[in-house]
Amino acid sequence: MMSPVFDAAFQAQLATLIAWRRDVRRFSERPVADWLIDQLLDIAQLSPSVGNSQPWRWMRVDSAARRADIRATFVACNEAARLAQPDERARKYASLKLEGMDRAPLQFAVFCDQTTEQGFRLGRDTMPEMLEYSTVAMVSTFWLAARAAGLGVGWVSILDPQAVARALDAPGHWKLIAYLCVGWPETNHLDPELERHGWQCRTGVGRQVAVR
Amino acid sequence: MMSPVFDAAFQAQLATLIAWRRDVRRFSERPVADWLIDQLLDIAQLSPSVGNSQPWRWMRVDSAARRADIRATFVACNEAARLAQPDERARKYASLKLEGMDRAPLQFAVFCDQTTEQGFRLGRDTMPEMLEYSTVAMVSTFWLAARAAGLGVGWVSILDPQAVARALDAPGHWKLIAYLCVGWPETNHLDPELERHGWQCRTGVGRQVAVR
Repeated sequence: MMSPVFDAAFQAQLATLIAWRRDVRRFSERPVADWLIDQLLDIAQLSPSVGNSQPWRWMRVDSAARRADIRATFVACNEAARLAQPDERARKYASLKLEGMDRAPLQFAVFCDQTTEQGFRLGRDTMPEMLEYSTVAMVSTFWLAARAAGLGVGWVSILDPQAVARALDAPGHWKLIAYLCVGWPETNHLDPELERHGWQCRTGVGRQVAVR
Repeated sequence: MMSPVFDAAFQAQLATLIAWRRDVRRFSERPVADWLIDQLLDIAQLSPSVGNSQPWRWMRVDSAARRADIRATFVACNEAARLAQPDERARKYASLKLEGMDRAPLQFAVFCDQTTEQGFRLGRDTMPEMLEYSTVAMVSTFWLAARAAGLGVGWVSILDPQAVARALDAPGHWKLIAYLCVGWPETNHLDPELERHGWQCRTGVGRQVAVR
């Protein structure tokens, strides 16, 4: 098969996609078609993974009771995180919307199977965390493909990962990597919500590269 | 600013890009222009990070002596990994080319600053590994943008991460996430090298999604 060429117009549009990818917390309730999610998961399946181990395990969380359990761990962890902030920051923290679990039509718990034999351990003897990193790369790919299709993704990490695993009866050797809210966003933005609401601006690349 | 629309043609080309992204180990010696790397790092800078913490720290490794030190840890770790394989697999393992450190014109050590205050700890109290995951997401973004520009990226994980950090005099609170070889690939492929050489095929998405 001929290797494809990605021209300057595509490269520019890819940069635009990356710039407009957001962590979305405000979803419309419009449902998302199953075929679209299937298509996005098929695309994300081609993400890099150490030794081709593909250690990601996705659970689609549909049950209202399980969603409520997971939201309860968010509420508890979020309150603890607010209290851990200094006073002036704690007020600001309380004003932020940090997840869309109340409305996101689709929610996924993404785990890493830490005992998979797929890949025959290649590339992970000295860095076993490569399995987790492979799972993160898969989430990243899904996120970009979803944004290209107009879908919003929000990654919630203010959770007790073990409580989430328990709420979902996940096997003990699955480690929670991400809890994702997915749906059609209410609005699209070029600037991150945390920047727009005065929590943390992004900084330039300059101070982050050194030469040795 | 108007939210961009990514049409079906772009979405299809993005899927093609994701399908043709490879872990590259066979590089041409043709140099890579600095402006191109700067551009790719600027794009990747827009990757998601927990609390906008942007914890990634890139080191461009130019020194031949430091490259040799890092290659020495690969050689030692790779030999240990080969010996840890069962006999029939060990022979196959020895036949694989697992890195391009001998020829890749550009090499980067990517670290995570585990003590950064940027982001004011938002999103990482209960999952401190979110800093590492943010760094992985940045590498994923860089990888796709590089492939779109025709550049190959190879992620080497068969390394002692502490030995690499020592070889580069990295600060103690920087954790090595990835060692990347970057350059123009000798050839492009749709199938992963590990699949082409009979180590591990990729499997379909089917068995990796459950509903709860």
